[in-house]
Amino acid sequence: MSSASIRPAADHGGDPTARWVRFARNGAEGFGTIAGDAIAVHAGCMFAGAAPTGETVALASVELLAPATPSKIIALWNNFHALAGKLAVPVPSEPLYLMKAPSSIAAPGATIPRPSSYSGRVVYEGELGIIIGKTCHEVSPDEAGDFIFGYTCVNDITALDLIAADPTFSQWVRAKSFDGFGPFGPVVATGIEPGGLTVRTVFNGQERQNYSVTDMIFQPHDLVSRISHDMTLVPGDLICCGTSLGVGTIKEPTNTIEVTIDGIGTLTNGFVQ
Amino acid sequence: MSSASIRPAADHGGDPTARWVRFARNGAEGFGTIAGDAIAVHAGCMFAGAAPTGETVALASVELLAPATPSKIIALWNNFHALAGKLAVPVPSEPLYLMKAPSSIAAPGATIPRPSSYSGRVVYEGELGIIIGKTCHEVSPDEAGDFIFGYTCVNDITALDLIAADPTFSQWVRAKSFDGFGPFGPVVATGIEPGGLTVRTVFNGQERQNYSVTDMIFQPHDLVSRISHDMTLVPGDLICCGTSLGVGTIKEPTNTIEVTIDGIGTLTNGFVQ
Repeated sequence: MSSASIRPAADHGGDPTARWVRFARNGAEGFGTIAGDAIAVHAGCMFAGAAPTGETVALASVELLAPATPSKIIALWNNFHALAGKLAVPVPSEPLYLMKAPSSIAAPGATIPRPSSYSGRVVYEGELGIIIGKTCHEVSPDEAGDFIFGYTCVNDITALDLIAADPTFSQWVRAKSFDGFGPFGPVVATGIEPGGLTVRTVFNGQERQNYSVTDMIFQPHDLVSRISHDMTLVPGDLICCGTSLGVGTIKEPTNTIEVTIDGIGTLTNGFVQ
Repeated sequence: MSSASIRPAADHGGDPTARWVRFARNGAEGFGTIAGDAIAVHAGCMFAGAAPTGETVALASVELLAPATPSKIIALWNNFHALAGKLAVPVPSEPLYLMKAPSSIAAPGATIPRPSSYSGRVVYEGELGIIIGKTCHEVSPDEAGDFIFGYTCVNDITALDLIAADPTFSQWVRAKSFDGFGPFGPVVATGIEPGGLTVRTVFNGQERQNYSVTDMIFQPHDLVSRISHDMTLVPGDLICCGTSLGVGTIKEPTNTIEVTIDGIGTLTNGFVQ
């Protein structure tokens, strides 16, 4: 991918923001922060006291990986008022979520193939993702921010026709867990507040989603708090905050999906039938 | 836990069976195979060419851990003819499954507390578990056995009243992912064929489940094959094969649940309200 898509679309001025990436180079993995067209390589743990090694590598010289390795990927359903209205479903009283398999993770820039075992509709869903930074159990919404490392762009790819294919059991997990159906990145942006963010999805060159995070039913800090009362969240875990209007079917033989969140960057992936 | 519960309840004679455990001792983790009342400590990768170090440690001197660290835990719903009949649901044409969070894993012998955020019915579900041994993508049923490392006992603990609490979204993942709701072990038994196995669950001293694996709708090799067509399975991944008749509510202030599979062992866990 080009380094241009890594740059945040908005200028956050003097804010202590950083944009973390993971990368592969010469068969080894590394991580660091974006510095112009390069990566300031870091050592240690990304979530706890990582320090720059002093080395920089050109973005163009490495293969970007998904910027974290979550032990679990939690994905919200029905978390936007606008989409709940369109689907004519009630606003839920609690977050409704499923899990995506870690094996579904795809890198920024990766081209995702249609699964050979599924011939139905596949849809893109542009979303804000939360990356957890500290082990987190039963925290309050006010405390939750301390446990969030940063934010990323998610394309929650879904085999739409599987979900209700069996009348007795909704196959949410299977529909969203095919290999490659969980791309996120290209960076985890720290030091930003999610409240003002906008998620835009451009599908084959046309803008199809453009919605504000403020329309969320359960905002990021509330999500982390509530989910942490169900299960312990650990560093690197990813919470996909759900999508809003504009989800669409990926129909062409080859397709490009770009999920842009100003202040984070653009996640670009291909999809081939 | 006592070492007695580690011993297989059936004698497999000269079969090349091994019973693998993971353990903690002096703050470090180790693994090995059961040899009487001791563990023959091994080094390397459990799934690929582990070799005995020559050291043995008494079972009584260590804390057993869950015998694998799955990257994903896939749990079947409606995979037994007897239970499908009782629930009056059709036999599914494909495996129906959800995922449990890795953070739900509990060790053999662990006492699991009721989640503070949930006051409804909690049930035990005794199950056979498959542990994957090799990375596995689109394998046939005939090939699947080569990718199975071994078998374990699972207690698929479930917050029953959550599943259908919201009329628009079945909360399978949440209901089965609370911390501690995924105990399995005490061992992974290799070199056994699942066909003849029987799962027995003893709840507070009374046998409540006793069913044969032969009643499965999708047998273990078929499950691995079919799921491997949806997503890549990796060493250590756990597939919980689903439960049959006799699921019951965990009602007492303190409870003991024992899941026994002859040839594997007994998984014992407490549950406190």
